Amino acid sequence: MQLGLSVSDSDVSSFTPLVVLELADDTKAEAITWLLNRIRDKQKNGGAELLVDQLLFPAQDGQKSNPNVFVVGSTLQRLLKGAEDVGLFKEFQDGIMRGFTYANRESFKDFYGDGEGFLSDAECQYIIKHELDTLRAKNEEHVPGYPKVKLYPGKSVVRRLQSKGVLVQYFPLHNKEDLKRLSFSWYKKIKLSFQPLDDIRHYFGEGLALYFGFLEYFTFALVPMALIGIPYYLFDWEDYDKYVLFAVFNLVWSTVFLEVWKRCSATFAYGWGTLSRKKAFEEPRAGFHGALGFNPITGREEPVYPSSKRQLRIYLVSVPFVLLCLYLSFYVMMVYFDMENWAISVYNENPNFGTGILLFVPSIIYAVVIEIMNLLYRYAAEFLTNWENHRLESSFQNHLVLKVLVFNFVNCFASLFYIAFVMQDMVLLRQSLATLLITSQILNQVMEAFLPYWLQRRRNKKVHKRMRRVMGDKELPLLEQVQLETEMNTYLGTFDDYLEQFLLFGYVSLFSCVYPLAAVLVVLNNITEVYSDAFKMCHVFKRPFSEPAANIGVWQLAFETMSIIAVVTNCALIGLSSQVKAYFPESETQMILIVVAIEHVLLAFKFILAFVIPDVPKDIQVKLAKLEFDSLEALKKRKILEAAET
Amino acid sequence: MQLGLSVSDSDVSSFTPLVVLELADDTKAEAITWLLNRIRDKQKNGGAELLVDQLLFPAQDGQKSNPNVFVVGSTLQRLLKGAEDVGLFKEFQDGIMRGFTYANRESFKDFYGDGEGFLSDAECQYIIKHELDTLRAKNEEHVPGYPKVKLYPGKSVVRRLQSKGVLVQYFPLHNKEDLKRLSFSWYKKIKLSFQPLDDIRHYFGEGLALYFGFLEYFTFALVPMALIGIPYYLFDWEDYDKYVLFAVFNLVWSTVFLEVWKRCSATFAYGWGTLSRKKAFEEPRAGFHGALGFNPITGREEPVYPSSKRQLRIYLVSVPFVLLCLYLSFYVMMVYFDMENWAISVYNENPNFGTGILLFVPSIIYAVVIEIMNLLYRYAAEFLTNWENHRLESSFQNHLVLKVLVFNFVNCFASLFYIAFVMQDMVLLRQSLATLLITSQILNQVMEAFLPYWLQRRRNKKVHKRMRRVMGDKELPLLEQVQLETEMNTYLGTFDDYLEQFLLFGYVSLFSCVYPLAAVLVVLNNITEVYSDAFKMCHVFKRPFSEPAANIGVWQLAFETMSIIAVVTNCALIGLSSQVKAYFPESETQMILIVVAIEHVLLAFKFILAFVIPDVPKDIQVKLAKLEFDSLEALKKRKILEAAET
Repeated sequence: MQLGLSVSDSDVSSFTPLVVLELADDTKAEAITWLLNRIRDKQKNGGAELLVDQLLFPAQDGQKSNPNVFVVGSTLQRLLKGAEDVGLFKEFQDGIMRGFTYANRESFKDFYGDGEGFLSDAECQYIIKHELDTLRAKNEEHVPGYPKVKLYPGKSVVRRLQSKGVLVQYFPLHNKEDLKRLSFSWYKKIKLSFQPLDDIRHYFGEGLALYFGFLEYFTFALVPMALIGIPYYLFDWEDYDKYVLFAVFNLVWSTVFLEVWKRCSATFAYGWGTLSRKKAFEEPRAGFHGALGFNPITGREEPVYPSSKRQLRIYLVSVPFVLLCLYLSFYVMMVYFDMENWAISVYNENPNFGTGILLFVPSIIYAVVIEIMNLLYRYAAEFLTNWENHRLESSFQNHLVLKVLVFNFVNCFASLFYIAFVMQDMVLLRQSLATLLITSQILNQVMEAFLPYWLQRRRNKKVHKRMRRVMGDKELPLLEQVQLETEMNTYLGTFDDYLEQFLLFGYVSLFSCVYPLAAVLVVLNNITEVYSDAFKMCHVFKRPFSEPAANIGVWQLAFETMSIIAVVTNCALIGLSSQVKAYFPESETQMILIVVAIEHVLLAFKFILAFVIPDVPKDIQVKLAKLEFDSLEALKKRKILEAAET
Repeated sequence: MQLGLSVSDSDVSSFTPLVVLELADDTKAEAITWLLNRIRDKQKNGGAELLVDQLLFPAQDGQKSNPNVFVVGSTLQRLLKGAEDVGLFKEFQDGIMRGFTYANRESFKDFYGDGEGFLSDAECQYIIKHELDTLRAKNEEHVPGYPKVKLYPGKSVVRRLQSKGVLVQYFPLHNKEDLKRLSFSWYKKIKLSFQPLDDIRHYFGEGLALYFGFLEYFTFALVPMALIGIPYYLFDWEDYDKYVLFAVFNLVWSTVFLEVWKRCSATFAYGWGTLSRKKAFEEPRAGFHGALGFNPITGREEPVYPSSKRQLRIYLVSVPFVLLCLYLSFYVMMVYFDMENWAISVYNENPNFGTGILLFVPSIIYAVVIEIMNLLYRYAAEFLTNWENHRLESSFQNHLVLKVLVFNFVNCFASLFYIAFVMQDMVLLRQSLATLLITSQILNQVMEAFLPYWLQRRRNKKVHKRMRRVMGDKELPLLEQVQLETEMNTYLGTFDDYLEQFLLFGYVSLFSCVYPLAAVLVVLNNITEVYSDAFKMCHVFKRPFSEPAANIGVWQLAFETMSIIAVVTNCALIGLSSQVKAYFPESETQMILIVVAIEHVLLAFKFILAFVIPDVPKDIQVKLAKLEFDSLEALKKRKILEAAET
């Protein structure tokens, strides 16, 4: 973390820059002065007590750089106090994770000297973000120089500047040395080892580390399915018993591994201090607007938007829109089947190699169209959810996830359901499943990593060239780094990554008894996915602020729902298979009843399993209980002492 | 609460007696002295700082009374401090429930003067119980006078005395005046109003008030089903559509009302201060034994029993035993069917009034046998669960509930399932359901209220007579009251009451489309149940200690599981009905598929409904959030003040 900061050519600032603030280049000087003063001001005066400096880029031929770029840093003491503010949990001397307090800092493990190196980079940046976000207006009625950018006591200054476009962005800086080390241990060396999750968490924070942990776990969990699936494919096993066995194994296995994941994630989250950490009080989103009123919880002045109005928007606009999109998706699906039929008829008329390839074309086109529709819908859903004007980011996210999940599920799997249960054509189902899965995997890898990487490389070269031209050969690492990172794309969170895994899980589990090879394909995909995701985090996107996460949240529910649907579809598929029908030649009714009974038993078994397996491992339960017990005892002791004093 | 305490004839003690302690009548004097000293000792010396006095009963001809009966009371100040210890929540001036603290006592609503009347009787008694339970051994190696009753530092003295039989019982005293007032407003006046839940909670505590709240809610929730069910019975509607409609209504309605109950119970629990109250650290059960070791959470010395041993006992003894009992229950069921067949054959040979009545005899006998088996099994389950040696009362309760629920469910409903799905005889099903339901209702009312009442009355008269003979006409209310209540039966908690409602819910919901009158019968039963339960609480049993409960716990899950099973059974019944079969004359397969599809839709709908309806009403969510926000703000302010000081 020893980057020399060159504010101008000669002047070297005394602090390590951690976060970059970029204001619009036409920001009024008085607003800048006011903001910097507020950031530098003492906490007792309502300031953030942080260090901040302007970065002056040398004039470049023709292109003027934005002069209003600032770097924010902090003293170590301030960071440690901030760690207490945000409620960080750290390992205590006795091996238990406890809420960090500045007063007891010396009793925490790994705290040496003045505490250098006690907080990770990601934590420092998170603390600075928190302090900036909770920098509140005092008696200012508006931002100086901007009579229209209204403020009221208690309003987050940064949120307001952001929503009015004065603050363009703020983001944490990469740390080149750490990054080099991380990327080496993560994806550069060819090895057969787990990902360095602790290092990832150190550098990117808990939310992302948990995603990579899940990705790895999920991939390993698919390996048994893949291994069992291979002989089915190789030897063309079409036995009834074997398929049923495979399906039952898959269903039970998917329940078990989802339950066990909860325990893993609890173990991770405990070690990272996020499991027992309390959620901070949530500020309204930057984009939330409404008439000024009073928040019933804080009693502060705040925009208020009637929830009835929001409900109206949801039920009268969003829901119909989603339904319309679903209809559209069905329509596209029917077009695909027409194309499919046409291709088959062409092939039947004139079967040769060319028309043989033509057979696959409709599926491929359809897979591409699905991806495009998903992408377009994603933007629409974001726009709509934004327009619904949710007060909290969490509620915004929930509504967005729900909208996107429903559509993606239908869009990706509708054709498969149609083929399986309306057309009842298992050969076509297998073929479609394979084409969809493979095409979407290829598209995803391209869209997600290679394309942004290529764009980023071009941009890098341009900036390099520009800087070289201006500064000659003098090294200007910080200025160059800031300029490069300012122009990098912003990583929009783990949403798309989880969504991709969710859909892959659907391909594997929904029709597992028809296409046992799906698991193999997904495992192969995920092995490259780890590398491309790691690469994109390190080199394609701006460094994201760390997000303290104790679990994968709504995605756990989504995966579990998928595994329940999978029980239904797999049982139905088994019931439809001709081999099973052959077992009950005289009575189809009896066969259906047996299949339904098996389905119910499997579902009941899933619920009982989920109920029986504890979500938190025993040793962590004990540690959590100890923490709670200690705090109760401390309270009791304090009371007895107080009583003795009086 | 102004009962004069007469310790001997003339000597009147200064405090209000709240709790009675009964030691074995051969307890050694030194143990008694030691115990009383520990109870009276100051808190800072590790005592309970309570008031305690011996009750001396006058010698009675021939029969010697137990001399070791003590009454415990407390000063008001001690009780208020105890309220803080147990973490009582009380309404603050601003209308929000907050954790009571002695320092801020004046800021709580309804706190006047020295706080007389601020705590309810039940709360005072709960506080005294808590203080007695947490009276811990210091350096004593054993109870004085009993070298075999070992102690170790931190062991609860009362628990040890109880497990060794030195302490026979301790229970809270009734308050005659309050009881009179409560019973008048509760069940003595004939009225069309709700139960006085707040008064019940005041007198008996939250756990019981919640049970009566649930009983009332459940009964009201059944009224719509009952009303819709009556015409089905009266007009003998056998239409397919109507039955399906009734079943669907029932299923959706039962989901809705169970979900809404959560909201109601949250509202109750919030108002009573138990919703946000933290669970106290749980002591080991009185009966728990094991080798002395260290508790990993508290670090204290404590008996330790390896959980692997417990698992062995559960899986090698308890589970086989339960299975054996289930087998026995099936066997009894088959005997019942033999009897049934025999009765029918007798009736067919010679159909007259006598043999007509004979038709009902097997069902009635079977119903009685079921009740007896349930009762016997209950004792066995309690014995077994005790033998499994669970460390915590909560874990003991969970294992007991699970054992009892499974057996009761099978025992009560197995014959109905058999008739419905194996014999497929809807007429017999209806008849059996009616007989079982009515017989079990009558038996329950007799066993639960009338029998204990009758025994209690006999005992009361005896004590009255005895006391009169000894004391002449002098009034001795407290002595007499204590002697009476000492001999009353102990109320064993709400377990049996909830279990009864659970089984009734089963009778109503499992086969609702066959016997729509079941809801009517249950409503009628529950109306008398309210009265008989109220009566038994007030006059048949010892007053129980209040139990702070925030919800009905495991019973919510049990009822929800029942309503899920009900979806499956009702759909299956509809599929079996001849009317439905007539709708699909050519294809039974299609009919089954449609029924299965409907079932899945209903199940999915249930889950979505449960997910969509928030468990806590909005206004209470806001109040809870405000509480949390305030405590966060207070913490922040304290920190800033501390920082300013240094």
